Amino acid sequence: MTTRVLGVDPGLTRCGVGVILAGASRRVSLVSVDTIRTDASSELVDRIGHIGEEIEKLILNVKPSAIAIERVFSQQNLRSVMGVAQISGVVFMLAHKHAIPVFLHTPSEVKAAVTGSGRANKQQVGQMVAKILGLEEVPKPADAADSLAIAICHAWKSVGGTVSSSSEMTSAQKAWQAAEQNATASKRR
Amino acid sequence: MTTRVLGVDPGLTRCGVGVILAGASRRVSLVSVDTIRTDASSELVDRIGHIGEEIEKLILNVKPSAIAIERVFSQQNLRSVMGVAQISGVVFMLAHKHAIPVFLHTPSEVKAAVTGSGRANKQQVGQMVAKILGLEEVPKPADAADSLAIAICHAWKSVGGTVSSSSEMTSAQKAWQAAEQNATASKRR
Repeated sequence: MTTRVLGVDPGLTRCGVGVILAGASRRVSLVSVDTIRTDASSELVDRIGHIGEEIEKLILNVKPSAIAIERVFSQQNLRSVMGVAQISGVVFMLAHKHAIPVFLHTPSEVKAAVTGSGRANKQQVGQMVAKILGLEEVPKPADAADSLAIAICHAWKSVGGTVSSSSEMTSAQKAWQAAEQNATASKRR
Repeated sequence: MTTRVLGVDPGLTRCGVGVILAGASRRVSLVSVDTIRTDASSELVDRIGHIGEEIEKLILNVKPSAIAIERVFSQQNLRSVMGVAQISGVVFMLAHKHAIPVFLHTPSEVKAAVTGSGRANKQQVGQMVAKILGLEEVPKPADAADSLAIAICHAWKSVGGTVSSSSEMTSAQKAWQAAEQNATASKRR
């Protein structure tokens, strides 16, 4: 059974929206990835409104079976948290309206899922996203790559289970296993 | 010309929604007031979704010409700010969708508008709201009264102008003038 996961990296200036297909055995592939942009000089209401409209269009187009979004943290800069929280409110409302379950993942969960380290930088996340999805280039900007990382994190967390044999692994699974091994190795150091 | 102003006091557990009619010379009257409640044990997505649905129903019913909402502040408790920000995001999106202008007012602006003091307590705000709107009782809970205070604040701020003659004043205008005089008196002390 395959599922479509919409990952959202919420942001007022650039909101990343990535859709992946997730199958059995951690198999994931790219459906679409985009960045919804709004002008910092526009009214806040119009910025939030535009982002909401675009996300709703995407929901109607791709009909995701799950939406994964980054959990907002109190430790972050409060100004940016406000915009992120407002967008997450909009995403929650749209998910509720279209009866799609929403899942929250922390930034470190997302980083750990795709790179094996909860402290990976944006570049490492982007590179692993490209590797896992078999893309020739790292999706740009970082917000686009991050939305895919969130979707992958959710797909893998919700499937659960472990890869049993390396001979049956896809390149994504191999990348994941390597990342997992790296993470274990770093912990041991 | 009369306008309908929807005031929103955003909150996850209790979200106050008050609608007033605002006419010339600071004339204001009650259309409706309600508190949208959600259970703290429910999923956040469902709580936000329910509040959004109820606010949208209200918008469709009363067709407000303006929405006034409390501006969220960074000084407040961050946990409560998150819920308030998420709801404000939903309100912004709905306002954008239905092409209704949204106005933000700070808590102290709202308090000063209805009581004459930016430091008034909830009880004083409730009592002045009842006086201004000619209600026999103070709207309960405080969230309901606050939503009306936000709507009144917006109506009066957007009309601007001052009351010229006490002989032509309505009871609301008299209450307002008294509050203004109190505020001036307190400043002088």
